[in-house]
Amino acid sequence: MAKKTNNQDLMDKIVSLCKRRGFIFPGSEIYGGLANSWDYGPLGVELKNNVKNLWWKKFVQERDDMAGIDAALIMNPKVWEASGHTGSGFADPLIECKKCHERYRADKTPEFLCSKCGGREFTEPKMFNILMKTFLGAVEGEKSAAYLRGETAQGIFVNFKNILDTTRKTIPFGIAQIGKAFRNEITPGNFIFRTREFEQMEVEYFIRAEEWEKWFEHWRKQMIDWIKELGINTKKIHEIEIGDEERAHYSKRTIDFEYEFPFGRKELYGLAYRTDFDLKNHFKEPPYKDSDTGEEFWPHVIEPSLGVDRSVLAILLESYHEEKDSAKDGVSRTVLKLPLRLAPYKAAVFPLLANKPELVKKAREVYEILKKPITQSSNYPITVTWDDRGNIGKRYYSQDEIGTPFCITVDFESLENNDVTVRDRDTMKQKRVKIKELPGHLEKFLKNS
Amino acid sequence: MAKKTNNQDLMDKIVSLCKRRGFIFPGSEIYGGLANSWDYGPLGVELKNNVKNLWWKKFVQERDDMAGIDAALIMNPKVWEASGHTGSGFADPLIECKKCHERYRADKTPEFLCSKCGGREFTEPKMFNILMKTFLGAVEGEKSAAYLRGETAQGIFVNFKNILDTTRKTIPFGIAQIGKAFRNEITPGNFIFRTREFEQMEVEYFIRAEEWEKWFEHWRKQMIDWIKELGINTKKIHEIEIGDEERAHYSKRTIDFEYEFPFGRKELYGLAYRTDFDLKNHFKEPPYKDSDTGEEFWPHVIEPSLGVDRSVLAILLESYHEEKDSAKDGVSRTVLKLPLRLAPYKAAVFPLLANKPELVKKAREVYEILKKPITQSSNYPITVTWDDRGNIGKRYYSQDEIGTPFCITVDFESLENNDVTVRDRDTMKQKRVKIKELPGHLEKFLKNS
Repeated sequence: MAKKTNNQDLMDKIVSLCKRRGFIFPGSEIYGGLANSWDYGPLGVELKNNVKNLWWKKFVQERDDMAGIDAALIMNPKVWEASGHTGSGFADPLIECKKCHERYRADKTPEFLCSKCGGREFTEPKMFNILMKTFLGAVEGEKSAAYLRGETAQGIFVNFKNILDTTRKTIPFGIAQIGKAFRNEITPGNFIFRTREFEQMEVEYFIRAEEWEKWFEHWRKQMIDWIKELGINTKKIHEIEIGDEERAHYSKRTIDFEYEFPFGRKELYGLAYRTDFDLKNHFKEPPYKDSDTGEEFWPHVIEPSLGVDRSVLAILLESYHEEKDSAKDGVSRTVLKLPLRLAPYKAAVFPLLANKPELVKKAREVYEILKKPITQSSNYPITVTWDDRGNIGKRYYSQDEIGTPFCITVDFESLENNDVTVRDRDTMKQKRVKIKELPGHLEKFLKNS
Repeated sequence: MAKKTNNQDLMDKIVSLCKRRGFIFPGSEIYGGLANSWDYGPLGVELKNNVKNLWWKKFVQERDDMAGIDAALIMNPKVWEASGHTGSGFADPLIECKKCHERYRADKTPEFLCSKCGGREFTEPKMFNILMKTFLGAVEGEKSAAYLRGETAQGIFVNFKNILDTTRKTIPFGIAQIGKAFRNEITPGNFIFRTREFEQMEVEYFIRAEEWEKWFEHWRKQMIDWIKELGINTKKIHEIEIGDEERAHYSKRTIDFEYEFPFGRKELYGLAYRTDFDLKNHFKEPPYKDSDTGEEFWPHVIEPSLGVDRSVLAILLESYHEEKDSAKDGVSRTVLKLPLRLAPYKAAVFPLLANKPELVKKAREVYEILKKPITQSSNYPITVTWDDRGNIGKRYYSQDEIGTPFCITVDFESLENNDVTVRDRDTMKQKRVKIKELPGHLEKFLKNS
């Protein structure tokens, strides 16, 4: 009955659904767009925030060995010199058309024919740095040049001693951060998979060198757990050992967690053992002292690095289903089977008929009950939406498409019995529930999600 | 008994506490800093996130007339041309030293003596645009120039039709966004009050022109409510009508909500009636059609604009108290009387003595109970910290200083009676509470906060 779409059209369908339903819009669309920039719409921002909040809760708030930070996007340029990002390690190889000087990625140029002027002759590949430059102060020029951060990680490393001094953490411990990073790449693409402006969730986990294998394994398992929590089928995840030649210069071991995207198996997340490379770059003296032994050293680092936008894309792909309802011959539906905790709306409330004031009134009451926090201690209410257009079938279709787990209908029976129909997104089964038991009923499901 | 510090030292004390306890660090500090950039540390990021989450809940999730978005920081440069930001309306007047060409803000230069070369002659003031420039693609130059957004608002305006199409909202309704903005100002300063990189929480509320006064008043009241929710004394808030000459060119009425900062009465938030200026800039045709009358027009806009960093600063200033405990003659404390829902940690758990394993074990049990969500439906657990250093008095002092509402001590009685001492931050009163009743006990307070 359920048929999972898994062909080349899938990306087009996701992009289309995202725009049509308000998950993700092309950036600056009314001005013809801006190469590979995207804006999160009303549903997309809720989905993305749910992902970020879940990550922060799991990896910062629920752990004792973690501290969070939020560093500035623009740091002193010396940070990027010390980290090696202004050098050739953070650069793309580009070739230039000898006729019109248009530049292309050396490894991507199709048939070596300039798409601008048709030229066929190109320069040898040269490395171009992908840090994005800006200028501070009133005068443009190298003196006032600064960079938008190329990774969130450096904001963590330069604050290492500040965190030590204020939290009294002892290794092993980690510092976590969520925030934007920027890379001036020539050929970004594939929807939100690769964009010049993107959001990262990164942990730098500080350890003793001799324990690196143990903690690498710990974080490998944590990442698999996380992938499962997002509802991603781990059969589509491939752990790829990155060979000596391809690893970043600072890394002694790297695993890419590749996901079977419709456009190929590509990196979803990365896990790297960065050794003491970064702390040694930033601190001339050992920044850590063992309080028992007095030993001073540079801790080593395990880095689980997760892209927020790639997470959202994988979640959308994984949750997207086209189903044919055999009971209603030929009537099919599109449904986002999102994990309940990630769904933008947890419930939708309908009056059976929009032109019956008594039904609308009762349905509004139910809606207002659910809009309030289920318990006052919840930091969030459950997010609820209202729909009174068209018939019930169309409303179900509409809510399925955006992944709303529960549709709640107020009908004429509701007026007599103070109950409602609760329809489950995934099973499409319906159940009568007393209004006063409704918050507890939903809570039971949300708790187990 | 309570003595509120309110002198010129207050800023120094706040900046010092923020660095010492891990709220806010100077940005890029190990490289000599970067003019007026700041990094949020472990406690600061929790406080800031609590502010942002509260705002999002109140102004987006709990309202039916609001949609959230999260637009890219870098938009097509045409957006900023259309909005007028590349022109003289978004510029600072600067003068240049005739000898060494250093530039200064025309209205701020002290005694007209160049601080770089000592020169006394300056050019006439010229306007310099404060949009921050960057470059997309492999070649620097005007062709590839783009800007970091100077305000979040434009990301909302350019998506106006996308939101209409996907949410079917009808006016009056608003679009809300939280995110960073950048202004290349010459003399930012006063800690996190004015920085080149800052975070905004903005609503653009779309209305009929004839109803602007009604909705202006609605949002004026909403902003006062919000200020109260942050625990800010409204006696220190002054609503300033901005005169015709000082208002931005697009505004027909603006109120600044000024707060009595230690460095003077300065703008905390702004409320502006932006008319249809922005939508008319971006849409040549009317972007809105009344479904009943068929009338087509450009809606007008009321804009409540709130700075995240200024909110955090005002909250810190307002909650900072130095108290002399008269009962213990001369023993004083510093306490952040943060609203409970904003406090980075809601509770701290202590074993009375760190060298008694049975106390430590029992205290860990209590700690683990509180680390779990009070109810499973909470999106967040309550945030709890652990302290077993020094004596109880020092631990209280330490938690007061970071605003932890409840300190929970496990003592020898706890082992027999399964209860703990709960000490209240503000009253310093202590109470015995059964461990099994502890989550409910804390919940009761948090619910009313």
